[in-house]
This record gives sequence, structure tokens and C-alpha cells, in this order.
Amino acid sequence: MPVEGLNNVKIVFKPYEVVVFVEDGSLLDAALKGGVAIESLCGGRGICGKCKVKITVSDGELPPPKPREWKALSGDEIEEGYRLACMLKPRKDMVVYVPPSSRRGRLRLQTEGIKLEAPLKPMIRKYYVQVPAASLEDQRSDEERFLEVLKNNYGLSEVSVGLNALRKLPSTLREGEWKLTAVMWGKEVIDVEPGDTSKEGFGVAVDVGTTKIALYLLSLVNGEELATASVENPQRTFGEDVMTRMTYANRSPENLNNLHEVLVEALNRLVHEACANVGVGESRVYEAVVVGNTVMHHFLLNLETKYLSQSPYTQVLRQSFTVATEKVGLRINRSGYLHTLPTIKSFVGADNVAVCLVTRIADAEKPTLALDIGTNTEIDCGQKGLGLMVTSAPSGPAFEGWATKWGMTAADGAIERISIDPETLEIMYRTIGDRPPVGICGSGYVDVIAEMMKAGILNHRGGFNALESNHVRRGVEGYELVIAPAEETGIGKDIVITQKDVNEIVKAKAAIHAATTILLNHLKLREEDVDKIFLAGAFGSYIDPENARTIGMLPDVDLKRIVPIGNAAGSGAKLALLNTDERLEAERISVKATFIELATHPMFLEEYVKSMYLPYKSLEKYPKTKEFLSKLRFKTQ
Amino acid sequence: MPVEGLNNVKIVFKPYEVVVFVEDGSLLDAALKGGVAIESLCGGRGICGKCKVKITVSDGELPPPKPREWKALSGDEIEEGYRLACMLKPRKDMVVYVPPSSRRGRLRLQTEGIKLEAPLKPMIRKYYVQVPAASLEDQRSDEERFLEVLKNNYGLSEVSVGLNALRKLPSTLREGEWKLTAVMWGKEVIDVEPGDTSKEGFGVAVDVGTTKIALYLLSLVNGEELATASVENPQRTFGEDVMTRMTYANRSPENLNNLHEVLVEALNRLVHEACANVGVGESRVYEAVVVGNTVMHHFLLNLETKYLSQSPYTQVLRQSFTVATEKVGLRINRSGYLHTLPTIKSFVGADNVAVCLVTRIADAEKPTLALDIGTNTEIDCGQKGLGLMVTSAPSGPAFEGWATKWGMTAADGAIERISIDPETLEIMYRTIGDRPPVGICGSGYVDVIAEMMKAGILNHRGGFNALESNHVRRGVEGYELVIAPAEETGIGKDIVITQKDVNEIVKAKAAIHAATTILLNHLKLREEDVDKIFLAGAFGSYIDPENARTIGMLPDVDLKRIVPIGNAAGSGAKLALLNTDERLEAERISVKATFIELATHPMFLEEYVKSMYLPYKSLEKYPKTKEFLSKLRFKTQ
Ligand code: FES
Ligand code: FES
Repeated sequence: MPVEGLNNVKIVFKPYEVVVFVEDGSLLDAALKGGVAIESLCGGRGICGKCKVKITVSDGELPPPKPREWKALSGDEIEEGYRLACMLKPRKDMVVYVPPSSRRGRLRLQTEGIKLEAPLKPMIRKYYVQVPAASLEDQRSDEERFLEVLKNNYGLSEVSVGLNALRKLPSTLREGEWKLTAVMWGKEVIDVEPGDTSKEGFGVAVDVGTTKIALYLLSLVNGEELATASVENPQRTFGEDVMTRMTYANRSPENLNNLHEVLVEALNRLVHEACANVGVGESRVYEAVVVGNTVMHHFLLNLETKYLSQSPYTQVLRQSFTVATEKVGLRINRSGYLHTLPTIKSFVGADNVAVCLVTRIADAEKPTLALDIGTNTEIDCGQKGLGLMVTSAPSGPAFEGWATKWGMTAADGAIERISIDPETLEIMYRTIGDRPPVGICGSGYVDVIAEMMKAGILNHRGGFNALESNHVRRGVEGYELVIAPAEETGIGKDIVITQKDVNEIVKAKAAIHAATTILLNHLKLREEDVDKIFLAGAFGSYIDPENARTIGMLPDVDLKRIVPIGNAAGSGAKLALLNTDERLEAERISVKATFIELATHPMFLEEYVKSMYLPYKSLEKYPKTKEFLSKLRFKTQ
Repeated sequence: MPVEGLNNVKIVFKPYEVVVFVEDGSLLDAALKGGVAIESLCGGRGICGKCKVKITVSDGELPPPKPREWKALSGDEIEEGYRLACMLKPRKDMVVYVPPSSRRGRLRLQTEGIKLEAPLKPMIRKYYVQVPAASLEDQRSDEERFLEVLKNNYGLSEVSVGLNALRKLPSTLREGEWKLTAVMWGKEVIDVEPGDTSKEGFGVAVDVGTTKIALYLLSLVNGEELATASVENPQRTFGEDVMTRMTYANRSPENLNNLHEVLVEALNRLVHEACANVGVGESRVYEAVVVGNTVMHHFLLNLETKYLSQSPYTQVLRQSFTVATEKVGLRINRSGYLHTLPTIKSFVGADNVAVCLVTRIADAEKPTLALDIGTNTEIDCGQKGLGLMVTSAPSGPAFEGWATKWGMTAADGAIERISIDPETLEIMYRTIGDRPPVGICGSGYVDVIAEMMKAGILNHRGGFNALESNHVRRGVEGYELVIAPAEETGIGKDIVITQKDVNEIVKAKAAIHAATTILLNHLKLREEDVDKIFLAGAFGSYIDPENARTIGMLPDVDLKRIVPIGNAAGSGAKLALLNTDERLEAERISVKATFIELATHPMFLEEYVKSMYLPYKSLEKYPKTKEFLSKLRFKTQ
């Protein structure tokens, strides 16, 4: 409880709903006091520009922006009420909105900006009934007396009782004094539980990524999310990427089965962990809805991947699929069901269908893009009436911490935010967990390339300008920028970004940009027509949208149009778990989506080459970036 | 090939279709020559009367019946062309029909007299298809291209492909050069096989008896029966009768599971044996239809039997049930299905529904009875429009070789046929396998009681008459009849029938008769109204119908109306396997049948007491028996 004492200014931080009373200090200090994690790389010196917030309500005039704020914010932003939290000292009560790009930590992942609510319409329903006792006058079988009550009380007809439920029925009836709860999956009674358990029913939504598996435990009674659990995909032992794993799987059915089994075992552990966290019995989890790319999808179902990996790249199964969990070895309720969302093609999977489901992209009133950035970046582009185009861009592993000198995954000690003071070339950074740096993760690379552009260290072609600086130097592989000198790091070596690293990042973002251009082109849309860009996945949520736009990974649209949506694949799985209409919609999306093959696309190479610039060959396409590049101290060459 | 040489008379034995050419000797000799097993206890001396045959066609006048034939045959029988095979020396070509009661061995069990043909309409269908090859132009999933061909070629829509079939689909398509056969169970593809295997599909029909399990392997493509296999029910280790087994099962779920597992394992061995005999792969067996009494039915499905065995005797499941064989552990095709026919009540099971199915008793034009005689004798009585009444009479184990001094099951060395020369009281018998006798089986007891009546050894009340004879003597337990003196036996002891044995058999037949009377009474029918009596089961097929009638086990109807139908429960299972309409009919029978509870029936005790006579208290009810009893040398007392 905040106490109103001597502190005389009340600040409400949105969307956290945190209230803080302060006497003095900056908004950044106030946020710190309230436990609201606002990004800051320069320690509140107004240099890094990361602490942007928007004052939505103010009890009186605000002090005018400081010079540093004029520098860090665009005219439009100032117009809209954006300020640097570290530069503003509140004197009046105010309401402050912290935009996603200024957030740190868990809340950054939250999927505001997108409506996830669907009316609850789960496949699993529970019905509490009181069954007439068996007697010499009522010698009907237990099954018949039970089914009759279901019919009389709930109008349920043509119901069948599964074998496991039948096996439990007689003792459940008698132990519960003829009162029990029927667990129904569609028209099938899959379990019976003594007494009234109708308020206790659970399901899991799972996103099986190549790298990580995330599981969400939800109540099927009120839709609430109760627990999450995640783990590295244990298949990584068999290969980091899907191709290596398929090569292994394709050697023998036993190999395929190994990949299948480690995956299912991982899911079982996650179910166990999530259930244990909130004290839910695993037998009360009745359904699992799983999404994943097509390879993970096939591995989960133990379907052959041999033909996925070689031309003509044929999937075994595209459609959504439902199977008894017993057949897959998934340990939830033993008569539970596993549902997989449909895939689209060998390289566009159920995870992408889930993204389309969450973003409602096929029904968007205006042109909409969704990007799920990874080794392969799935891109969806659509609008109601115009259709839905999807593709998979070979963006490579650079953003995932591979292929760059100091790249690493987004783990403790990874530099995830970088800012460069364009005047002094001072480098500011923050690491995950605020530990001494040990490497740079994807969002750090996006930041540093953009900041190097803004500081004039990189030119239009992505080459280093020959600058006089303590930070830019000539290394064995050519120019490099020292991000963290050895003495600051956790590994005793200089952490640098080399020319080769820049090239790798440029190649990655070029593939994404070329693919985006091609999709837009198919729909006869221009970049400036795009109303909304959804960034799905962890990477998409952690990158700085402005910097991603600056380097040309995203089209040059207004920042407000770029919406990070967290693990949208998982969110789509949740939707489908909670509402069966969403499963039908997923199937419609899978059928409706037109897959654009890039490898053989006549435009791809040309667009790719044009995108190998920072931000793009023709600066006309990037007016916002062009504007500030023109103001640079050092001109691009 | 019979050769027409010096032998100049041609004899055709029906229904065997055996042709024999003979020069001299009796018809019995001719049958022996042709391998047609006609019953004979007296060695062709015209005494036992067992070798009755009917001359249906004769190329000229027959010699007139001999005195022995006049004695052994009724006037009606002689009128219809019946003769003793041992007494007739054929001089002209003829066609001879061997009635079931005169047959020995395997063919005795055949279910002539009843039509088993139903149009083939199995649940399993196979479809041969050629699927378009995957190509860069046709990148659809294997499943979609496959389903489209099924739709285009066979009009099959809304088809789903099961997980096991999906797992095999890609390699099957490619190994079979895009030609494969889909195995469908309803709308589900349960398996795929390379090439065209549409002519090769099998199912098994199984009758799980308390004592014996019989399995039939059938082609689902042409309905042919390919192999049978049978085995003792291994649950006998846990108790001879169902009550003992239930007592064991009810002690713990593990015990129940033990009974379940030994049963399933026995089925698995039978499937294996039947398949191995005819070189059929077990994976080509797609469906099993199983019948059995309600206790066996529950054991098979691993359903609790606790409430079956105690008042109010509630079943878990009455309705027909279908389940994936994987869930039960049955090893046929791994995606195959097990179907159990419905039961009626705790003590009238799916085996009895199968009997009703085979006999079409609910649709009979005239009043019809069916009896399946065992420890409990299920009796069905019905007529179209009148309804179907069923009951279970507590006939006890006497017919099954228990409760009598020398009783045994119908195994090698068991006396199964007995004849007594009423003049000399000479005793003639035949054992199973023609081995030295070691005991008497149920049909032997029925024979001997009837023959003792005819020979005046037993009186109307079932007591021994004080006769002067080498065979009747006073033993420790009162009068006894020596069937086989010690020196003839395989055990070195006299095999006898005691007064107590007679009493046990009388009690057993009395329960059956009383139950029959009650059912007829419920339908307002008299015994003489009965148009047909079907005798189901091994015992019903092996007993001499005339003797069964003589002792009052069956009503006093014309012998032609008594039709042994072998393992009708198994036959019903076969019908249901081959035609899904029969499954619906079975469900209708199960619903329609009215169960008459005898234990509490007001008439039962009275009728039971009246039936404790030989054949019945009032001889008016048994005019045929009364007639010959009146001619006896020794009068009943
Ligand atoms: S913290 Fe405000 S600009 Fe760096
Ligand atoms: S064999 Fe013909 S009467 Fe015995």
C-alpha cells in the first residue's frame, strides 16, 4: 500500500497500474521506487534515449522538454506527450504510460495491443449428475442409468462412454454416493469423478519450438492461465537445427522414434511441473493443444520427416489432427486428447497458423503484416478480401546468436540493449540479469547496428567508416567496434562487433525485408500501406522496433504500428484450447493461406541484393531513417 | 475318387456328399467304407437303435423293415423312410440322409437346419487406389492427395486417417509406387498397405465361454471361414465357475486385471494359431467380434464385476461396445477394433444375444424355443409379435460332468453314448476317441437315464426298480447300474450310475423344464404349440434329442422340431462380424428381450417340483413317452 505522507505527487504507471507517491526525483526514479522496470542504458543522463514514456494525464502544465529530450525524441513524439523519464521531474499528479519498447523484464512480453479474449467454448465439458441408485427395481446397467441422467438433465444424447470411464464408473458411482461428474470430450465421456468436480478442469497449450518448448496450463472452466513452464527442446542433443535433426531421423525409424520420445518426455515433464506449481492433478488435465513448425509437428506425432526435407518437400499431414494421448504417450488424463493445429507447408507450420489466428490477419480491415523472426522467419501478410500470403525467409541463425563472433542466446550476461552517444561515441549497454557481459544476443545486434548507423560508424553499404575513436579499431578481421572492453566483461576478453558480424546481420535482415517486399507485392500493396506489423516470438518482443526499422528489417512505418505480441504461437494454441471455433478458423487459415516459395521466386534475388544496404538501396523507401542520417556528424560514404 | 468296378450299387450319403460303390454288406458298412461316421453302439446288431438313417431316393423298392427295425423305429419314422443302417442291405442305388442324431464326430456340430447366410456388409472395407505422385507442382500433403483419390474413386468423404496409418503412409505410398490399399473401419482409415491387397481382409469371431474359448477366422472379403481354434479358458486356474472367479476378482483391481490379462492372452494365442494355420498375417486381421456371458464380457473389457455378483446384480455395461484393440491388448492389426455384442442382464450375456441372433427367434413365424444348456441354461422363447422372453435356469454342473460320481467333461475316454437292450438289459456304450472308458459325460448321462426308463430300471419318480440283473446292484450309496465293469475301463474300477447321480440329473433337467414352462406360460403358449426347439452349444449338439425329450428335459414335441445348432454363440459372433446390420439387430434383441427372474418367480418352485419326475409329474404332458412307457416289461411304480 502506497502511503500518502510527506510525498505529495501521485504518479500512476500504466499498464502496470502501479501508484507511486514521490517528493522529488525524476519519473525514472519514481518508477524504480514503484518497481516498474523502465529501460535505461545511460543511467539517467538523457543520452541513451531508452526511457521514453508518454504522459497521458497531467494535473497541470508539464515543464518544457530539455535539450536532450529534443534530441532523443522526434517532433511527433513530443507532440504526442512522449518524454524521457530520466529528464522529467514531476511536480503534479500524472498518469504515465510506459510503451513496450521502454519496458524491461516480464511485462515486456505481455500481449497488450492484441485481443486474446474468445468466448469460452472448450471441447471438454464437465457435468455434475446424481444417478439413481441401482436396486432390484432398477436393474439397468450402470452405464444406462448414468446416460439417462445426462440426457434428462443436460439434453445430451448419443453419448458414448469410453473404456477407461466405464472401468471407473461402478466404484465412482458408489464411492460418490451416486453423485459424480462426467468429463466429456465432445460426445464421449472420457472420465468420471466422484462428487462435484465441475469447477475443476484443465488443459494445456503448448508451443514446441526448435529451440524452446513453452507450455501453458489453463482452466477450461474460466479460461484463466494458471501456470507456465518452459524448457530447452531436448532434441538439441540431436542437432541444433531442424535439418540436422531430420537427417538423423531419416536414417532409421528408431532414430525418428528417439526424437519423438524425447519430445514427448519433455512435454510430460512440463505438464508435471506446471501442475505441481499450482497443485493440480495431472489426471485433471484433459486436453492438450500443440503448435510447432512442421518438423516439430511431425516429430511430435512420430510421422516420417524423410519427404519433408527433400524435394518436393511433402508433408505427411497438413490438416489439424486429434488423437488419444495414450497413442502418443502424453501423460495427462489417460483418456485425454491431443489436438495439433494444422500446418501450411513443409516450412510454414502450425505455429504460424497460430500467429495468424491470434493476429486475425486474414480478417484485418487494413493491410497487416506479422513476422515471427528466427532462423527461418515466417512472414504473413493479409487483409480481409485481399487474401493471406505466407512465406518463410531464410534469415539464418545470426539473430539467434550463431554466425556472429560474440553472438549468444538471450541468457544471463548477454548484452541485449546497446546505445551509442553520437557525439562522444560513448557506448552504453545493459545485459540480461545485469551480469558482466559474456556476449551479445540478437536484440543487442539490432541495437548496435542501428546505433552505429546513427553515430556514423557504419555507412550506407554497411561498411565501417574510418573513424578516429577509442572504440573503433582494426582487428585481425578488419574494422571492429569494441562494445565492452575485457576488464568489464565476465570472460576477460574484449567483446566486439566486427565487419563480418555486421555483414551477417545485414544478410539476415535483408532476407526478411526482401520476403516482406515480395509478399506486399503479391497483394499489390506498398510498404506505406501497411497498417500494422505484429512481431511474434521472443526475439520480436525483445528487439527495439525503432532500431529494427532503422536498419531496414521492418518497413519504414510509424512506430505505433509495430506491435510486439510475445509468444503468439503459444497464444494461438491457448485460443484453440479454449474455443473450438478457433480450431475451425485455424483450419480455414491453413487452407486459405497462399504459400510463396522464395527459393525459386523471380524477384527474390534482386530484392535481397537491394536490401543488403543500411537500411535499403534506395533511401526513398526509408524517409524516417533518411531524415536523421542526413543530420549525421559523419556522412555515409 | 470312387471307382465303379465290380461294385455295382451306388450310395450317396447326405449331407456329406460322399459317394460309395458297394457289392454287399449293410448301409452301415457302406458308410464306414466311405468314411461317413454313423453312430453305432451295438456293433450293427440292430439293438442300440442309434444308426437311424433316412432313404430319400431309391432306385426301386426297398426290402421291408426287419423286426428289429419295427422295434427301434416309430410308425411315423418308418412311414417317412427311416431305417436302421445296420439292418438294410442295399441292392439298388440310393440317396441316404444321415440325421444329426445319428452322426458322430465333427460334422455333428455343423449348423445345418439354420441359415447363417447374411449378405456381406462388414465394418471393414478395403479400397485400392493409385495416388498422384508428389511433385513440385503438387506439394499437397500425402494425406490430402490420398484422401482426394478415395473421394474421387469411391465417393468416400469425411474420411479421417488414423495415426498409425499416417505413420505408414509416406513409405507405403513410395514403396508401392503410389499404389496402395486403404483399410477402412467405417470412415476411418486404420491402415495402408502397399499395392493391391483388397482381396485379403480378415476378422475373428470369438465365443468366450466360462470353460472354453472358440475363435473363428473369417475372410471379410467373401465371408468364408478359414480356420478355427479353441482352448480351455485359462481363467479356470482362478476358479471353475464364474462365481469363484468373481470372488477372486472382487478382492482387488489387480486380481480383476489378472483375469482380464489371461483371457486376452488366450485370445492372442488363438488368433496366432488360427492365422498360422492358414498363413494369414495377424496384421491383416482388422476386427474381432466377441460374445460371452456377462461375466466373461466384463472380464474381457476389464470392467468391475463386484456389482454383478451381489444384489441387485448390476452390470457396468449392457450395450454393444467398440474399442480400439490396443486399449485391450488384443494383438490383431494394431489399429484394429474389438466389438462386443450387447448383453441382456447379469446372468444373460452376449452369447445368448448371439443365439437369438442366429435363431431369429424374435422374428419367428411360430413359437420357438432356444436352449443353451450348461451350468446355467439360457432359455429364449419368442415369436414375432408375441415378444421375446429370456431366462437363465440354474441347471447346475451335472451335465458338465460335475456333481455326479463318474462325471467328466467331454474328453477322450468319456462315455458319450449309452444304449440298453430292454430285453436283456445288455449295456452298450461308446466313448470319445473309442478309448477305454474313464468316466461319463453329460450326453452319456442323458442317454443312460432315458435308456434306464425304457428298460424299466427307473420308475416315474426316478427311483431304481428292484430288478434282478447283473448290472443293477446295491452299492454303498444304494442302487447303482454298472455301465462298464472294471476290466473294460481305463481306470480299473467299475463305472456306475448311482441313485444320487440320477437325482442330480433329474434336478438339472427339472430346472430347465420348469424354466421353459414359465417362459411359455408368460407368452401364453403350451408345450405343443412350440414349432421349433434350437439346441445351442456343444452339449445341446451332442445329446440325443429323443433321449432328452424322453427324460423330460425338452417338451414332448416331434423330433424334427428339435434342431441342434452347434456353437450358436460363435455363429452369432460370425454374423455380427460379417454384417453390421446384425450388430444393430443384436442391440435391438438386447433391448427387446424381457428377462424373467426365476429365483423370485412365484411359479418356479411348483413347476420345479412337478418336473422332478421322469419325465414329468403328469404323464399327459408327455404322450410320446407315456406311450412307450406303457409297453414296458417292468412297470413303473
Ligand atoms: S535513461 Fe533516460 S535517456 Fe538514458
Ligand atoms: S448299429 Fe444299428 S441298431 Fe445298433
